[in-house]
Amino acid sequence: MLNKLACSITHLLDARREGHSLPAGLYTREDVFQADLEVFFFSHWIYVGLECDVPEPGDATVIDISNTSLILLRDDDNEIRVVRNVCRHRGSRILDPGSTVVSKLVCPYHQWTYELNGELSYAPHMGKDFDKSCKSLKAVDFRSIGGLIYVCLSDNPPEDIADLENAMLDRLAPYDIRNAKVAHQIDVIEKGNWKLTMENNRECYHCSANHPELCVSFIDLDFGYDPESLSPADRQQAEEHFAMYNARTAAWEADGFPSATIEHTRNVETNFRSQRLIIAGAGESQTEDATAASSKLLGHMTRKDLGDMHLWGHNSWNHFMGDHAVTSMVIPLSPDKTLVRTKWLVHKDAVEGVDYDLEKLTHVWTETTEQDAELVARSYAGILDSAYEPGPYSRFSEGALDEFATWYIERMRAHGY
Amino acid sequence: MLNKLACSITHLLDARREGHSLPAGLYTREDVFQADLEVFFFSHWIYVGLECDVPEPGDATVIDISNTSLILLRDDDNEIRVVRNVCRHRGSRILDPGSTVVSKLVCPYHQWTYELNGELSYAPHMGKDFDKSCKSLKAVDFRSIGGLIYVCLSDNPPEDIADLENAMLDRLAPYDIRNAKVAHQIDVIEKGNWKLTMENNRECYHCSANHPELCVSFIDLDFGYDPESLSPADRQQAEEHFAMYNARTAAWEADGFPSATIEHTRNVETNFRSQRLIIAGAGESQTEDATAASSKLLGHMTRKDLGDMHLWGHNSWNHFMGDHAVTSMVIPLSPDKTLVRTKWLVHKDAVEGVDYDLEKLTHVWTETTEQDAELVARSYAGILDSAYEPGPYSRFSEGALDEFATWYIERMRAHGY
Amino acid sequence: MLNKLACSITHLLDARREGHSLPAGLYTREDVFQADLEVFFFSHWIYVGLECDVPEPGDATVIDISNTSLILLRDDDNEIRVVRNVCRHRGSRILDPGSTVVSKLVCPYHQWTYELNGELSYAPHMGKDFDKSCKSLKAVDFRSIGGLIYVCLSDNPPEDIADLENAMLDRLAPYDIRNAKVAHQIDVIEKGNWKLTMENNRECYHCSANHPELCVSFIDLDFGYDPESLSPADRQQAEEHFAMYNARTAAWEADGFPSATIEHTRNVETNFRSQRLIIAGAGESQTEDATAASSKLLGHMTRKDLGDMHLWGHNSWNHFMGDHAVTSMVIPLSPDKTLVRTKWLVHKDAVEGVDYDLEKLTHVWTETTEQDAELVARSYAGILDSAYEPGPYSRFSEGALDEFATWYIERMRAHGY
Repeated sequence: MLNKLACSITHLLDARREGHSLPAGLYTREDVFQADLEVFFFSHWIYVGLECDVPEPGDATVIDISNTSLILLRDDDNEIRVVRNVCRHRGSRILDPGSTVVSKLVCPYHQWTYELNGELSYAPHMGKDFDKSCKSLKAVDFRSIGGLIYVCLSDNPPEDIADLENAMLDRLAPYDIRNAKVAHQIDVIEKGNWKLTMENNRECYHCSANHPELCVSFIDLDFGYDPESLSPADRQQAEEHFAMYNARTAAWEADGFPSATIEHTRNVETNFRSQRLIIAGAGESQTEDATAASSKLLGHMTRKDLGDMHLWGHNSWNHFMGDHAVTSMVIPLSPDKTLVRTKWLVHKDAVEGVDYDLEKLTHVWTETTEQDAELVARSYAGILDSAYEPGPYSRFSEGALDEFATWYIERMRAHGY
Repeated sequence: MLNKLACSITHLLDARREGHSLPAGLYTREDVFQADLEVFFFSHWIYVGLECDVPEPGDATVIDISNTSLILLRDDDNEIRVVRNVCRHRGSRILDPGSTVVSKLVCPYHQWTYELNGELSYAPHMGKDFDKSCKSLKAVDFRSIGGLIYVCLSDNPPEDIADLENAMLDRLAPYDIRNAKVAHQIDVIEKGNWKLTMENNRECYHCSANHPELCVSFIDLDFGYDPESLSPADRQQAEEHFAMYNARTAAWEADGFPSATIEHTRNVETNFRSQRLIIAGAGESQTEDATAASSKLLGHMTRKDLGDMHLWGHNSWNHFMGDHAVTSMVIPLSPDKTLVRTKWLVHKDAVEGVDYDLEKLTHVWTETTEQDAELVARSYAGILDSAYEPGPYSRFSEGALDEFATWYIERMRAHGY
Repeated sequence: MLNKLACSITHLLDARREGHSLPAGLYTREDVFQADLEVFFFSHWIYVGLECDVPEPGDATVIDISNTSLILLRDDDNEIRVVRNVCRHRGSRILDPGSTVVSKLVCPYHQWTYELNGELSYAPHMGKDFDKSCKSLKAVDFRSIGGLIYVCLSDNPPEDIADLENAMLDRLAPYDIRNAKVAHQIDVIEKGNWKLTMENNRECYHCSANHPELCVSFIDLDFGYDPESLSPADRQQAEEHFAMYNARTAAWEADGFPSATIEHTRNVETNFRSQRLIIAGAGESQTEDATAASSKLLGHMTRKDLGDMHLWGHNSWNHFMGDHAVTSMVIPLSPDKTLVRTKWLVHKDAVEGVDYDLEKLTHVWTETTEQDAELVARSYAGILDSAYEPGPYSRFSEGALDEFATWYIERMRAHGY
């Protein structure tokens, strides 16, 4: 008889070998999934949306994280608010999934009515002595960092969100994401664990064979390479690339555009990384020909040659370019299913068909996202197999995965696992 | 680390606060669901169907309650019988879901053949010495109360089913449900816990905003109201309504039609409530214009003005009117799925298209049932959310829910939880 | 309160009563299912395919057993190999389900490339010092017995696979299954436990009422009958049949075709049974009229009158006839779902439409397989019902089930349950 008593999560964490992918159970077990939700989605700051998801007063949109449903809205004073989508009477959902426009938040069940600031203003049948003041919708702690909305559902939110804020405010300012427009949005459900989704996003080792569209503008060398395996010609090309990268970074910085790599991934609570990447070819944008998709540039941008300001979080990735931005959030649905919600942002006044072509704008990342979903599913299926053993990360191009896995283990331990 | 050890069911029962909805786990947990099945569906009397589901000898219909399948049939002596739908050989299902006509019950697997009284009469290949007498189909304890079939799967059935019988025999007699005809039947699967289905049915606080069709004939005031919140004009109208209600009840009683409210909901095993309700407007029937849907009245009825004889159980609700009846049974499928099976009954000789119009007959409760399914799903979704806390019941219009919740807790405790 | 602590598997094994079907939990429980996989599918030899599934060098086919995925392939030296379908890098599946032709096994994720013998030959980005020799695809222990592939995933494979080999090599030789052709394949998912699938296959008590097509060529008497229940005329017919059976077996043996019944089902690890059965009517093949479906006989066969060489295993059944063979493997998917994969084999040079008609070839077992799926589902549904109790096996026609159940219990105990 095999030992059918599943080992503890602590044992799985202890079993993790440096430089290697995680033990299978950390990707596949239901108890680990519940712990992941608790630690990484309900105790850390997570990226959930944008100010420009709700551009006008009364705009509201629902964000579901596991069974937790949030309403992101803009109130009558033009302020962003985030409240829980649960009526204080008998628990009914107030708003349906998706976006809507509201003057008040009215529960459809018994007409309990909340102001946009969450206060209960009407509760029929409850009697004169009923104290409405203690039945406001529950508020959610959030930060808008340059228009990107981060929430933390914990009573004890990590303080180093300030590091993210400090790092990104200057970088994001020219793009004025707060006032951008969501030109397109897609939801893709990947058949794999959320950590595989994040690992897949943190390496470009798989790019050349799997992402033909992305590789027109993306330079996989930037994500690491094995110098010994290159031919002398290829090695020289790589060295020339990095010389150019350094020169361009210096030039951008000199022009007042912060570009250096920031790695906030070791011994931290809030995990992020930012870097201004070069765009290949025409050098403007992540499109099929690397030229800009929108003739109206984002925010206050006056140049298309500022590359790709990249921001990674533990549940997001973002690319800010001169003409548009692509932003993805990751929400785990089950140990084996993960939602990736991707939005394309353009200048708020850019008009589809006039200033930008939607197909050109969205093609590269639509294809890339589908390709990644296929890879994550393939990876998850193999990890479920008893033949799987944690494998070695490439020290050249999978170092960020090793760091992510190490951070994952440390954060789990910090939460008592 | 959160406390990942789920608390005991006992702890959840103890946590219930009077006047408030139940703690979330009592609605959502799988172990509570299994306990609910055991206590409320396998140890109490439950409503499962009607004599008129099987009007002729040889008629048989299958009723599935979780994995338990029952055959309700009428034998050659015109007697109702209920047997388990499991062959005594290797356990095969004998009849498929749905209704059929049989002369014997033959297991399709190996042709073991049972008489309609359940006795095994043929078992090929079993040898001469095989004792068939101990391999009858298992019989199920049942009562027909005025033609409504209640079963109890426990060896120790609650004795107070006699109270239900005593209360309802006179009330149901004029409708002669035993000899009615099932004119229509629908199954709706609600995406919520069965207790939410029952709670939703026991209040009409939600009616005015959600059931426009029902509110033509239904008077939500009858289910309680908050006098303080009414305008003087509305309050006067309410007082006039209750004066009329009392006068009409007295008149019905004087004419020999029992009408008073019977509440068998506190400190009881078998939970029910009965009341003769006024029908609004034309006053005849729960139709779009409150006039009768069938010109041939039910049973021995000679009057259309006897209102709505209402009967609630813990897994059913019923409305008996002059021209037709609507009867619903509730079967839990999982913590988050509940079957509601609704039947419309008319006089056995009433002919569709001649005596009644099916659309008129069924419209109001078809719509109402769909609306209720939506509300139950919305409520269940919110209760799954960590933002849910048990909320206050209105003491004016949700008192019956408070009693139901209290009875639920008591019955669970009586069964050792 | 019922005892909600599930009893141990050991307790369920102890509760099994001789001569009766298994206690319900052994068919339905998830923990038993996991134990079954471990004991009967990962520790015993199981039948998974055929050499002729991969007739040419580079042919590869994927076989999934629960989450375990195997690649059966033929390498460049014409040797059969079985390897695990899991990349040694980060665990990705290498091949998709189904069959393909490959020159190397290339993982689509990061292009790790394995030779057909499983050796890792290319691993980009891993650096010069990376030792590829310890990262071969994991090999699987297998035997080809007359062209039938058996694998064992245990480090300690049962040695009595040699008994199967010794018994079958002579019996299978004339059919030359190694060089046959797969003319057709179907997958049917039965809604029941795998042991019900096997029980159903080991008796023909259900045949006469359920398998009209099969009964043209199959003689259910061969699988046992109750002599006392037969009329004098039927009993005489049965006695004549067995006289003929004995005479024909003797004649076949005299002609050099081993035909006697081999029962390797008691006190063994590897469970099998083989017998040469008579084909009824025209006597040639399991077709609608019992005549051969293929004019080109299998392998070296020169006669169509050699009946049906039957081979049962614990996850397979096979019928080898003069003109074709039918072979089925059984893979559990969940406690309540079982895959039955059936293949029809003909001579490798037989041409569809010329030498055989595909519809005639496949009709009988296609229908029979669908009928059996229905019976297994019906049986499983009843066993889930609390009314189920283990029922008596017929001592005349279900003796093989009693032996299978006994072997099941013994093997579970041998593995510590």
